[in-house]
Amino acid sequence: MSRPKYAPKNPLLSPRFGDVATFNRLPYVPDLKGKDVDVAIIGVPFDGGTSYRPGSRFGPRAVRDASVLCRNFNPSLGIHVYDRLNVVDGGDVSVNPLNLQTTFKNIEKHVRQVHEAGARAILVGGDHSIFLPELRAIHAKFGKPIIVQFDAHTDTADSAWGEKYHHGTPIRRAIEEKLISGSDVFQIGIRGPLTSADQEDYCHEQKISILDIESFQDSKKRARFFSAIHKKAKGSGKGKPRPVYVTFDVDGVDPAFAPGTGTPVVGGMTSLEALTCVRALKGLHVCGANVVEISPPYDHAELTSLLGAALVFEFLGLMASR
Amino acid sequence: MSRPKYAPKNPLLSPRFGDVATFNRLPYVPDLKGKDVDVAIIGVPFDGGTSYRPGSRFGPRAVRDASVLCRNFNPSLGIHVYDRLNVVDGGDVSVNPLNLQTTFKNIEKHVRQVHEAGARAILVGGDHSIFLPELRAIHAKFGKPIIVQFDAHTDTADSAWGEKYHHGTPIRRAIEEKLISGSDVFQIGIRGPLTSADQEDYCHEQKISILDIESFQDSKKRARFFSAIHKKAKGSGKGKPRPVYVTFDVDGVDPAFAPGTGTPVVGGMTSLEALTCVRALKGLHVCGANVVEISPPYDHAELTSLLGAALVFEFLGLMASR
Amino acid sequence: MSRPKYAPKNPLLSPRFGDVATFNRLPYVPDLKGKDVDVAIIGVPFDGGTSYRPGSRFGPRAVRDASVLCRNFNPSLGIHVYDRLNVVDGGDVSVNPLNLQTTFKNIEKHVRQVHEAGARAILVGGDHSIFLPELRAIHAKFGKPIIVQFDAHTDTADSAWGEKYHHGTPIRRAIEEKLISGSDVFQIGIRGPLTSADQEDYCHEQKISILDIESFQDSKKRARFFSAIHKKAKGSGKGKPRPVYVTFDVDGVDPAFAPGTGTPVVGGMTSLEALTCVRALKGLHVCGANVVEISPPYDHAELTSLLGAALVFEFLGLMASR
Amino acid sequence: MSRPKYAPKNPLLSPRFGDVATFNRLPYVPDLKGKDVDVAIIGVPFDGGTSYRPGSRFGPRAVRDASVLCRNFNPSLGIHVYDRLNVVDGGDVSVNPLNLQTTFKNIEKHVRQVHEAGARAILVGGDHSIFLPELRAIHAKFGKPIIVQFDAHTDTADSAWGEKYHHGTPIRRAIEEKLISGSDVFQIGIRGPLTSADQEDYCHEQKISILDIESFQDSKKRARFFSAIHKKAKGSGKGKPRPVYVTFDVDGVDPAFAPGTGTPVVGGMTSLEALTCVRALKGLHVCGANVVEISPPYDHAELTSLLGAALVFEFLGLMASR
Amino acid sequence: MSRPKYAPKNPLLSPRFGDVATFNRLPYVPDLKGKDVDVAIIGVPFDGGTSYRPGSRFGPRAVRDASVLCRNFNPSLGIHVYDRLNVVDGGDVSVNPLNLQTTFKNIEKHVRQVHEAGARAILVGGDHSIFLPELRAIHAKFGKPIIVQFDAHTDTADSAWGEKYHHGTPIRRAIEEKLISGSDVFQIGIRGPLTSADQEDYCHEQKISILDIESFQDSKKRARFFSAIHKKAKGSGKGKPRPVYVTFDVDGVDPAFAPGTGTPVVGGMTSLEALTCVRALKGLHVCGANVVEISPPYDHAELTSLLGAALVFEFLGLMASR
Amino acid sequence: MSRPKYAPKNPLLSPRFGDVATFNRLPYVPDLKGKDVDVAIIGVPFDGGTSYRPGSRFGPRAVRDASVLCRNFNPSLGIHVYDRLNVVDGGDVSVNPLNLQTTFKNIEKHVRQVHEAGARAILVGGDHSIFLPELRAIHAKFGKPIIVQFDAHTDTADSAWGEKYHHGTPIRRAIEEKLISGSDVFQIGIRGPLTSADQEDYCHEQKISILDIESFQDSKKRARFFSAIHKKAKGSGKGKPRPVYVTFDVDGVDPAFAPGTGTPVVGGMTSLEALTCVRALKGLHVCGANVVEISPPYDHAELTSLLGAALVFEFLGLMASR
Repeated sequence: MSRPKYAPKNPLLSPRFGDVATFNRLPYVPDLKGKDVDVAIIGVPFDGGTSYRPGSRFGPRAVRDASVLCRNFNPSLGIHVYDRLNVVDGGDVSVNPLNLQTTFKNIEKHVRQVHEAGARAILVGGDHSIFLPELRAIHAKFGKPIIVQFDAHTDTADSAWGEKYHHGTPIRRAIEEKLISGSDVFQIGIRGPLTSADQEDYCHEQKISILDIESFQDSKKRARFFSAIHKKAKGSGKGKPRPVYVTFDVDGVDPAFAPGTGTPVVGGMTSLEALTCVRALKGLHVCGANVVEISPPYDHAELTSLLGAALVFEFLGLMASR
Repeated sequence: MSRPKYAPKNPLLSPRFGDVATFNRLPYVPDLKGKDVDVAIIGVPFDGGTSYRPGSRFGPRAVRDASVLCRNFNPSLGIHVYDRLNVVDGGDVSVNPLNLQTTFKNIEKHVRQVHEAGARAILVGGDHSIFLPELRAIHAKFGKPIIVQFDAHTDTADSAWGEKYHHGTPIRRAIEEKLISGSDVFQIGIRGPLTSADQEDYCHEQKISILDIESFQDSKKRARFFSAIHKKAKGSGKGKPRPVYVTFDVDGVDPAFAPGTGTPVVGGMTSLEALTCVRALKGLHVCGANVVEISPPYDHAELTSLLGAALVFEFLGLMASR
Repeated sequence: MSRPKYAPKNPLLSPRFGDVATFNRLPYVPDLKGKDVDVAIIGVPFDGGTSYRPGSRFGPRAVRDASVLCRNFNPSLGIHVYDRLNVVDGGDVSVNPLNLQTTFKNIEKHVRQVHEAGARAILVGGDHSIFLPELRAIHAKFGKPIIVQFDAHTDTADSAWGEKYHHGTPIRRAIEEKLISGSDVFQIGIRGPLTSADQEDYCHEQKISILDIESFQDSKKRARFFSAIHKKAKGSGKGKPRPVYVTFDVDGVDPAFAPGTGTPVVGGMTSLEALTCVRALKGLHVCGANVVEISPPYDHAELTSLLGAALVFEFLGLMASR
Repeated sequence: MSRPKYAPKNPLLSPRFGDVATFNRLPYVPDLKGKDVDVAIIGVPFDGGTSYRPGSRFGPRAVRDASVLCRNFNPSLGIHVYDRLNVVDGGDVSVNPLNLQTTFKNIEKHVRQVHEAGARAILVGGDHSIFLPELRAIHAKFGKPIIVQFDAHTDTADSAWGEKYHHGTPIRRAIEEKLISGSDVFQIGIRGPLTSADQEDYCHEQKISILDIESFQDSKKRARFFSAIHKKAKGSGKGKPRPVYVTFDVDGVDPAFAPGTGTPVVGGMTSLEALTCVRALKGLHVCGANVVEISPPYDHAELTSLLGAALVFEFLGLMASR
Repeated sequence: MSRPKYAPKNPLLSPRFGDVATFNRLPYVPDLKGKDVDVAIIGVPFDGGTSYRPGSRFGPRAVRDASVLCRNFNPSLGIHVYDRLNVVDGGDVSVNPLNLQTTFKNIEKHVRQVHEAGARAILVGGDHSIFLPELRAIHAKFGKPIIVQFDAHTDTADSAWGEKYHHGTPIRRAIEEKLISGSDVFQIGIRGPLTSADQEDYCHEQKISILDIESFQDSKKRARFFSAIHKKAKGSGKGKPRPVYVTFDVDGVDPAFAPGTGTPVVGGMTSLEALTCVRALKGLHVCGANVVEISPPYDHAELTSLLGAALVFEFLGLMASR
Repeated sequence: MSRPKYAPKNPLLSPRFGDVATFNRLPYVPDLKGKDVDVAIIGVPFDGGTSYRPGSRFGPRAVRDASVLCRNFNPSLGIHVYDRLNVVDGGDVSVNPLNLQTTFKNIEKHVRQVHEAGARAILVGGDHSIFLPELRAIHAKFGKPIIVQFDAHTDTADSAWGEKYHHGTPIRRAIEEKLISGSDVFQIGIRGPLTSADQEDYCHEQKISILDIESFQDSKKRARFFSAIHKKAKGSGKGKPRPVYVTFDVDGVDPAFAPGTGTPVVGGMTSLEALTCVRALKGLHVCGANVVEISPPYDHAELTSLLGAALVFEFLGLMASR
């Protein structure tokens, strides 16, 4: 296998803390047209859909900084990521911090351009509201994907303060817009108090599969849940496998592991458990992925940004493993 | 079931970060007389019994702030808390930061008033020394309760610097005052270096049941321990069940999950394990509960306060589940 | 002079760190109608107009916490504030974190209600965008006020990202809406790089008086500037004095004194200089005031919140001194 | 002049961050008897007299850590401190964190022992309540000293929560105990809201000289104030000069310079102004000194501890300059 | 058993936050000659071998501060540590922050002196590069030890930036210098991206035993791994057991438990798992141990320092248990 | 004047917190050859010459992040910086964190390449040791420059721990290497304890001009000092003006304004005073400049990085003003 066009700077020649920080010290290629790129890591510095602690607009910058500790070989997956894939830092979506709808349009347009250039996108948020416009682009390219969602919340609220679009509603809106089917949604790590039991009813009606934190602790239930994902992703068996989208809201892990986030819920999984679950998706056709809700002003010692960077590296591993 | 008299402000109408922060955004009702309240959450901002890091005097204020993320429905217990119970923010006990004995009198008096108004109290400390005067009130109302204590320390020291009353002695003093029996005390999460093995002897003599952190990791021992609690709580089987008091010193969990505390001991349980254990008390007659030793100056990103608020919400769930 | 209806809790009876934190430990009176209130301190937890670091939505809560150190007598002004004025914590404006226009309407309406109840309002932000709707209410009640603005920025930008309403535009919008006249605007502490010199042209055209940080250091220029304010405020001399509005963006002081803010600019005045300038407004007819841009996630040891609380106390002193 | 018996470790041989941290890297000599010591720096890790933020019990440890940056020669005073004085780290007073009266006895006893060994003491607090027992020892040895006090507060309160002894009362108690005379007390940096103007009356009655922060900014008033100190310290002119005690509450400086303190008041002097004022006491007979109210849990980047260490070094310079 | 010569200060007489902080409040004995010491805890404040975040030069001071919470009896091991062993704070190695080779010589010399005095050394780093010179001294005294290494990294890199000696190379250099054999090295907690799969080849060639984090989660593999250690340590069965050296790089645990470190890798073990593993070494002939890579500037609430102190206490327990 | 080739991204189109952070959001141009660049801002992420707190290796990254708040027009100097100068982010010098001499060679080489490309360099450290190799390049290009140094320390130490090259020696070494003359060195802000008065002797012998912090407070002395700089810079009056180099160690300002630094000294100037002094150099031929000793791990709310970025912007203004 020949050396890829794009590779991280060599840490043994130039120290990791040096120079301008790009995702994984990869080349910065904001315009992908004609660039032979397989995957672009793209920031979406938007927190205008946040209901509690803001700050995830600084998520992309913080993940870039933390990602310099990432390297080339993923020993858990046994893959030399950059030998298999041409990966670049695709820059940030041009957001409008004061206007969610404008930002949504820019996100969708930006991801469509990535797809047009023949590449897949990994997005670094930003709050979870950015997922909806991304799904619009994903749907246009790949059709309805299977959704694997790590989260404390189901994000199926209807509205808040009369607003339909915010970080608690992307799954509901995406189902309404027929971008995804509820029965294709797999949620892991759900927990915490709800406004009402009615919130569970919607998920039930939509046939969303939920591995809540109580079930998560039961190894058999966990295995069954991931089996179901693999089975669903395999498709009918005749045609090609179905596309899978992985969305990771960092509040899916316990706030001890991800303090820098907007709506923390205690009693979640560990980082190790999360990474193990992500790696369990190996072999699936991952058409896109994101990590969202990293709020650096509330982070400490880059804990949350380091987790975000590690997740991006695992997403790359998943994409490289097929 | 009719809507209760007291309910949290609706987060979908008024954002959680707004307005004066009361416990769980509940009405502030400092005087309960004639108010038809089932449970009052009451702050005890006193850290005058602390032997190492102070700061838990700011615990009630920090838990109020963090508790705004709590809602109504507890999905783990399957209970709409505020549909079943009238709960209010009962304000703070009037403490004297310079005088432990005066403060003790005020705590006992305040909790007695809650009981006289027909309500139960959930206390938010403050250091663990506040537990003794609370037990005086509890004993007066309910007789000897069963104690379920989450803690890194047994709190059975005799004295320090010649002082009998501080945050390391409440269990011993309560046994001496015949407010509780050692054989009714169940301690979970005990660990860490001791001044001497003699400290273990006292617990042994008093027949205190201890699930230390080594045993905690053994699922069978853990199950047996909780069975023993339930059996003991059931009482003789003839009369009514015995009252159970839950006291949660946040140093019972690992400092990664509760950094904001006064005498941290590494190597503890996770927040998820702690919450699971608390929920395992469902069905018992919980006559009162507290969460203590939250020291905000040492906290980060509200980790410890969020845990404190979540525990209060679980205590309410336990109280509502009977 | 008789004791006022409303007074802070006595710190010698109940410690300052205890109980629910209201502004200056004053009674919480969200509905002022018929309550005989002179001044209401009101939170506006909105940061949806922020261009850089968000977080000022937590400003009101943080200022409430810090304000418990405030007392009754202002020795610099020689005034027993609460003996002269009935002051309350008026709660927060009901904001919509996702919708600036809805929030603007609520702010204007809330302040109008304060005025209708015969009271003046002191607002605690929130970002500086909240100033525009407040000015709409001020103008409706008092006509065009004189503006004394402490700030690093002139807030006379036209737009950003195509948006006319954000925290960099309130002065320009207010002039356009004829709520204020540029020649009545006095800005103190202006400094830092600009996108272009054109930004200065607008201020010049509008006859805004600016005491930039270079001139601020010159005691004669400073004295002349405050003389001009007093002269302007005196009005024609025949009728009554003109109303003065004081708006304090905490980035007006150096970030060493106010680290918790959204768009810090180094090289500003000290807290002491700022307080001295505010006190120099004694004797004017202060019809309203605000302190904005306190972003607690970036604060340390409550430095910025303490400054915010101190400023509110000085504003009360100014209002009480006539 | 021969090399002194006791000297800091040489930073050019052993790095400052190495080894056990003692005050100024001086030898640790807890028992001074027969040790030929001129000055002992002694910690008083007690915050049991604190009314708001605790934590100053960790003050001595933090000042020891920060003091390793101190050296030998004071260029502002032109003095090689350790060539003139034998200085040691005298360890800490044995405090009882739960008992103010026991602690007071231990403080007085400890300082008396220092005096008996022929040495002077510099105390590092701890909260300001420790000043009273120290004054008892000072008075026993030196008679009534002149007090030069840097502080935001006059510390002349009568009581709080019915308690006569806490960090707001040492000056009043010392006057009542006839350890000092009000007319010998010089207070610098006083500012901030008061419970009532009556608090100023007591100082006036006792003829305490106050350079409040407004007067402090007037260079002529400042010069007159220090002249008055020098004149008073000179005594009648016939006998020997009067002893001067310097007590420095770090809230005397602005919280931007000393964030780590218990009852911060914005609008204070700078560190540079404070050091300049301390140096202006050169030539006086300084019989003792302390720096108090450093609360490390609220500090950042050791700002406040570094100031504390610098002040101790200046106190040594004053003592060495006669 | 008679009381040992050296014991921690009694916390019930003198509070833990008081006085000069030595390791575990033990006597400071920098020169061990003729002192009848069994174990000396020694700081190595050197971070000149760090490739990413520096700061571990402040590790010894921070661990001293945190270690004051340690006591005498280890309940997990059932041992009164200080009744069995004479332990002291042996001060710090004299490091040269600008010169790794000089520092290496000083480390080796210092540890040799400890051995010559008949004592064992526990080192507190400092970065992991300090391990190589220590191994030189260990080898000279004990021959080739078995290495039990807790770490995220194998530390078998060849060089970086052309430098052979840094914190990523000690194991490789030690094998090359024949201080240890690869087949005697047992590594626990290894994880995270690598520059290349080649890095795994070296470990394979050298027969290093690795319990990576995936295997670590499998209780059977974990048990087998520790069995292998015990078997290897028993030696041929004829002669005496082989010496075992325990080296604990705190990045071996998850950064949620040890945020204060230089090259954090998410997805590690918990503190409790780490302590349990260390205790599983009970019965072995532990000839020395260290804890390294604690970087206090990145720590929070002393989490990492407390872990470091707890590990030292466990190392003492292991040494005392034979 | 035509628009320059290189300009910062427009903040009104793309928000400041977005995209990869370069210095002042300028284009990243690591190879200047043939690029028509006037000034390159270059990072030197090296802290291997630090004697106390490390961390300045992260200085360039932190200053890049903070510098996004800089814009185009400098109102204090009245200059549109980027209309006059082509400025780029020149990337970082390739440092070797383990080898000072290699790093020194790379710094000199890098700066020489900047000069060869016809540009001037502004360096962002890193610790002050990087100044010496830079002076070697400066001397080769410009001859002996006049040095204007903001600093708490004179940096004229001879050696420490036997090492001649570290952050306390660059001025002495540069004089010895005849890169500069002592009589051309102007130091501002010097203060703090010294190991010995001898340290002052060297400066005196070398005729270094020092405006220590005591003199700095005297406006007449300050004016005379800056007059002397201007006079010296004017040269003989016949030929062209002499080159001036500005080196700004952030510990020159008080740690309240620059907490994130390695060897803080309390009692320094304010940020505003520092900026005013830098601007007072307007009109001189500034051949190069640096800002050093920013240690982000000790910073808070970016205070120190913001100052660093502001200083770079002022340096650009000075360069643009001729």
